[in-house]
Amino acid sequence: MSDSLDALKSRLGDVVSLTNIQALVEWDQQTQMPPGAAASKARHVEVLSKLSHEMEVADETGSLIAAAEKEVASATYDSFDASLVRVARRGYDRARKLPTDLVAEMSRVTAMAHEDWVKARQNDDFAAFVPSLTKILELKQREIACKGYKEHPYDALLDNFEIGLTAADVDSMFSELRVELVPLVKAITERADAVDDSPVHQEFPEDKQRAFAEMVVSKYGFDFSRGRQDKSVHPFCTSFSRDDVRITTRFDPNWLNPALFGTFHESGHGMYEQGSDPSLEGTILCGGASLGVHESQSRLWENVIGRSYPFWTHFYPKLQETFPGQLKDVSLDAFYRAINKVEPSFIRVEADEATYNLHIMIRFEVERDVIGGKIAVKDIPEAWNAKSKEYLGIVPPTNALGCLQDIHWSFGGFGYFPTYSIGNLLSVQLYDTAVKAHPAIPEEIADGEFSTLLGWMRSNIHVHGAKYEPKELIMRATGEPMQSRSYMKYLKTKYSAIYGL
Amino acid sequence: MSDSLDALKSRLGDVVSLTNIQALVEWDQQTQMPPGAAASKARHVEVLSKLSHEMEVADETGSLIAAAEKEVASATYDSFDASLVRVARRGYDRARKLPTDLVAEMSRVTAMAHEDWVKARQNDDFAAFVPSLTKILELKQREIACKGYKEHPYDALLDNFEIGLTAADVDSMFSELRVELVPLVKAITERADAVDDSPVHQEFPEDKQRAFAEMVVSKYGFDFSRGRQDKSVHPFCTSFSRDDVRITTRFDPNWLNPALFGTFHESGHGMYEQGSDPSLEGTILCGGASLGVHESQSRLWENVIGRSYPFWTHFYPKLQETFPGQLKDVSLDAFYRAINKVEPSFIRVEADEATYNLHIMIRFEVERDVIGGKIAVKDIPEAWNAKSKEYLGIVPPTNALGCLQDIHWSFGGFGYFPTYSIGNLLSVQLYDTAVKAHPAIPEEIADGEFSTLLGWMRSNIHVHGAKYEPKELIMRATGEPMQSRSYMKYLKTKYSAIYGL
Repeated sequence: MSDSLDALKSRLGDVVSLTNIQALVEWDQQTQMPPGAAASKARHVEVLSKLSHEMEVADETGSLIAAAEKEVASATYDSFDASLVRVARRGYDRARKLPTDLVAEMSRVTAMAHEDWVKARQNDDFAAFVPSLTKILELKQREIACKGYKEHPYDALLDNFEIGLTAADVDSMFSELRVELVPLVKAITERADAVDDSPVHQEFPEDKQRAFAEMVVSKYGFDFSRGRQDKSVHPFCTSFSRDDVRITTRFDPNWLNPALFGTFHESGHGMYEQGSDPSLEGTILCGGASLGVHESQSRLWENVIGRSYPFWTHFYPKLQETFPGQLKDVSLDAFYRAINKVEPSFIRVEADEATYNLHIMIRFEVERDVIGGKIAVKDIPEAWNAKSKEYLGIVPPTNALGCLQDIHWSFGGFGYFPTYSIGNLLSVQLYDTAVKAHPAIPEEIADGEFSTLLGWMRSNIHVHGAKYEPKELIMRATGEPMQSRSYMKYLKTKYSAIYGL
Repeated sequence: MSDSLDALKSRLGDVVSLTNIQALVEWDQQTQMPPGAAASKARHVEVLSKLSHEMEVADETGSLIAAAEKEVASATYDSFDASLVRVARRGYDRARKLPTDLVAEMSRVTAMAHEDWVKARQNDDFAAFVPSLTKILELKQREIACKGYKEHPYDALLDNFEIGLTAADVDSMFSELRVELVPLVKAITERADAVDDSPVHQEFPEDKQRAFAEMVVSKYGFDFSRGRQDKSVHPFCTSFSRDDVRITTRFDPNWLNPALFGTFHESGHGMYEQGSDPSLEGTILCGGASLGVHESQSRLWENVIGRSYPFWTHFYPKLQETFPGQLKDVSLDAFYRAINKVEPSFIRVEADEATYNLHIMIRFEVERDVIGGKIAVKDIPEAWNAKSKEYLGIVPPTNALGCLQDIHWSFGGFGYFPTYSIGNLLSVQLYDTAVKAHPAIPEEIADGEFSTLLGWMRSNIHVHGAKYEPKELIMRATGEPMQSRSYMKYLKTKYSAIYGL
């Protein structure tokens, strides 16, 4: 008696396949294609997104979901079938709220806006981006009107990336952080000379950087028989299946950090994708629970592990063997301090762990107030710079180094940024919970052993794929809601030691 | 009043996009994907081929074609619109003969069969490939039953690759060739010692092989801003647009020929794909007229040019510079003879020009008899070896060197092989016609200049894309039907000189 359920699975399986194939097209676009192929790529992405969207929002899909809901009425909440239908219902209702012409116009406008943003950033000319940005914001207001919200219009956009998250939630998270983080960064800045990061600013040949980083993430547990790494201008992780996960990185021949910590970071996303239960493969339940949870995994392996002292007690001798000319006279302690230098800077993606969340706070508050009508588009640079002064203590000399630095607005990604900070908070909250269950984890890390930690993440986070909403998943895994306490304690302990505070 | 024509163009444009995207998925499968991804690839190929097939054979497509036929009734035969509708009609009528489930199953089965074939060849284990091959042949018999045929069931498969070609046509072509070719090879074999090919059997580092071959094909006119080269087990050319053409090669560190002439070969396919008129981009008229015509372009640049004396008068000094240790004491004449050594051998793709067609004869006769029910799947190795003995005078010691050597059966490409011989014949017929129009071509080649020759191919073959049937195209380009006279004269002249016959 599961005819509708089977038909629903098959239909949604095709949607998932089309989405995965679109990810391949986009991966190829950013890692492989010859320059002349740009126009045909745009056409291919358009036809795939059109077909998958049509299939997803078709009346037929709605009827199948309604019928399947009856069929799974007695299935337990955690079961595959009940979860599939529940997640299908949520996705369908959300997608149906947006008229097809709005979706199509957003695609068209953002495709053009991307070009405008690239040029505006290149020329440090915010005014050149204003028309596109204004148009995108008009469409975002239409989207908000279609979706509705309870307290703040920005809530409707946050919910696109982190289900149920509200502006009030984010504000309260940042209020908590701000109290301790701003003084911490100030204290560190006053002792800026205590850390010298010149060891990581030397010449490091690309092939050796690559070999070392891939050796590490193999030990972490990134499975290269079900994944690979390529180069791209902007690093990312994408997947076409739990068994086909692609990460990318970029190399700076004169700076160790981007490729090294970038690879650690993307491998965290990658291991999450590879860790969905095999039974979820090819369904809408495969993959991650949310962007915030995803980011918790990348930040865990990049920072909590990859920038920790125990980790480097094991790996630093191997790094020295790889780069003897550069590092043989640099002690483990000096290297550990170098990779953990804190310094207020302009570019988010290059920010250290301590200042990173301040970048997110700036963007969040500007976004929220633009959406709420408190900041006009033309006044964004001024608002940005004021907040930068307030939180980071520095004012970007150009908009290219300020409000124009990130791609997200050009693709309409308002509401995306707070997930980065959520990832930071969760990375420590999850790690602490894992260590409570397995107190030997820090010692294992010092031996280059990660299977207990990865095993805990696998069984508490990864295997569930997208079955649970992020709040549910975190409650199940840690026994409490997301909190900032663990993260702040982690930062204070780590940097007090490094900077002798 | 061209509403139906516009709707037809848009619909077929989506079909072309899906087909191009499928080609990307398959390219990724053979050049990039991690081994674990095989199952998901099969699923992706299946959904794409299902969707494009459904769209192609939908009643709606038929109605649009019928309406468009009226709209273009007064357009000239050569016009874009008339050609589009004519080719759409032909494709539609052919595709309607195959049920969607058969097409989908073939995609799924062949995606898995590819892996089986790779393993079977690696392990020289024909039995391991039998289940896949049997399944494919069952599907081929269903296909033949759907399509129908006049004389021989194999005709229904030949027609997939070369419109209107029959087993009787192929048999008669090979009968003509056999009369002169078998004695020629025999005469050469009796003077086997006249040519020493040891110069090409030395150690040649892969990176230098690659750089040299890519330098040559850039000079030929392969446009790397609209294409790229990767490595794969079996070399091939595919395209996702006239502006996105991918060729692949493989390297033998101890043998110059495979990567060198392989790259020349695939670049010929690639230049054909890149040469469609820009107005055909994204339509069903973009690409090649048939496999046979396609192969004429690859064999032209691989052999007629790439193994010619004038070509090497220009490029041999550069090859010597690339490999001084290996070649500085090898004269141009000795090298020219070495790359043109004729010797019955096991592997088709590495065969010399004189014995190549004998390999095709073996495969053709085995295929025809398997399809005709005269050879059982399990008896293929025995039948293969017997024919190898008869035509080439040698018996492969393993099936990896015999019937398992080629990829084609794993993707269901029965009926494909005769197009290779057609390509050989046409390569010389077209070259002779171009030289008649531009007698300076051989001198230009000796100067490393290929633009006149490529220009002639561009305007007589490439720009037309798939507008004309192969027989029409060859008649327009050369003023006569395909013939074997030019090809046999070319072989006899070339090898009489080399072997002093």
